[in-house]
Amino acid sequence: MKTFRKKDFPVAQVRRYLEPGPIVLLSSHWKDRSNIMTMGWHMMMEFSPSLFGCIIAEGNHSFEMIRRSKECVINLPTTALTDEVVGIGNCSGADVDKFDIFGLTALPANQVQAPLIKECYANFECRLFDASRIKRYNLFIWEIVKAHVASSPAVPETLHYMGNGEFMVAGDTISRRKKFKPEYL
Amino acid sequence: MKTFRKKDFPVAQVRRYLEPGPIVLLSSHWKDRSNIMTMGWHMMMEFSPSLFGCIIAEGNHSFEMIRRSKECVINLPTTALTDEVVGIGNCSGADVDKFDIFGLTALPANQVQAPLIKECYANFECRLFDASRIKRYNLFIWEIVKAHVASSPAVPETLHYMGNGEFMVAGDTISRRKKFKPEYL
Repeated sequence: MKTFRKKDFPVAQVRRYLEPGPIVLLSSHWKDRSNIMTMGWHMMMEFSPSLFGCIIAEGNHSFEMIRRSKECVINLPTTALTDEVVGIGNCSGADVDKFDIFGLTALPANQVQAPLIKECYANFECRLFDASRIKRYNLFIWEIVKAHVASSPAVPETLHYMGNGEFMVAGDTISRRKKFKPEYL
Repeated sequence: MKTFRKKDFPVAQVRRYLEPGPIVLLSSHWKDRSNIMTMGWHMMMEFSPSLFGCIIAEGNHSFEMIRRSKECVINLPTTALTDEVVGIGNCSGADVDKFDIFGLTALPANQVQAPLIKECYANFECRLFDASRIKRYNLFIWEIVKAHVASSPAVPETLHYMGNGEFMVAGDTISRRKKFKPEYL
């Protein structure tokens, strides 16, 4: 399976990969077990500290793992992993080892116990920053403490979930940089 | 300028248009003035009630307008409005009437005072649902109370902001519907 050569990336700039709204794979670790879930409800919340919010329904096996461990990794898959993204979202870590059945490689992270998924374009290590709205909204607010991003391609071909089993695939990139005020870039 | 013929759309299904992560135009109205801002930090939070979260920095002219009016409309532009999206994000409603200078049409909404932008593919009327995290995170949690969506095309060519003046443009749509468990669609 395709893998990427990655390098450290500034955590204050991860909006480049997360603001476009890709589906992501959230990996977790708790009591000697690792798990992966597919997630589409997320947003950037702050540049520095690098805050990232997401909604994780209680029914997910990952919910208690991340609530207890207070850590996760947000992994960015490309279209090369379309079938894995769908498969991971349609089974439960209560029943299967998803790294095993989907043939994905768990690499050790630097700052958290949750594993990096080697086959993803980027990996963002997260520590729970604010748990106060988990109960009411299933809202987890994370601080991204370490980012690993592939050196190439410059723009990943990400998947964007529309519901109903359909995805929009990232298309062309266009620049309007010259029309921006420098302070708004 | 291109406009769309729209029809009512179920508010519990708006994730189809918002989960893929497009840049949106937020319109507001307060004390006889309307305004528009460009926004990229947002996510779905619940199907029913239809909850939508977004981050709006205090520096925006729209911030006080929406905090006071407790209403807004989330408008979904396509690539036909690329220059307007950039222009709206690079000037302030404190200085200019954005509907006027960008040649956009304000239509009355059904449930809120904020106007619909006629030239957008979809319009989602919102009422403020939870203001408790505005102060700490600039987080507005909205209930989408009415949705208007174009009848065609089936999939809008949306813009997805990457920072640095660059946008990813929505590409192809692919379906993996047959690989989903019915309850996960």
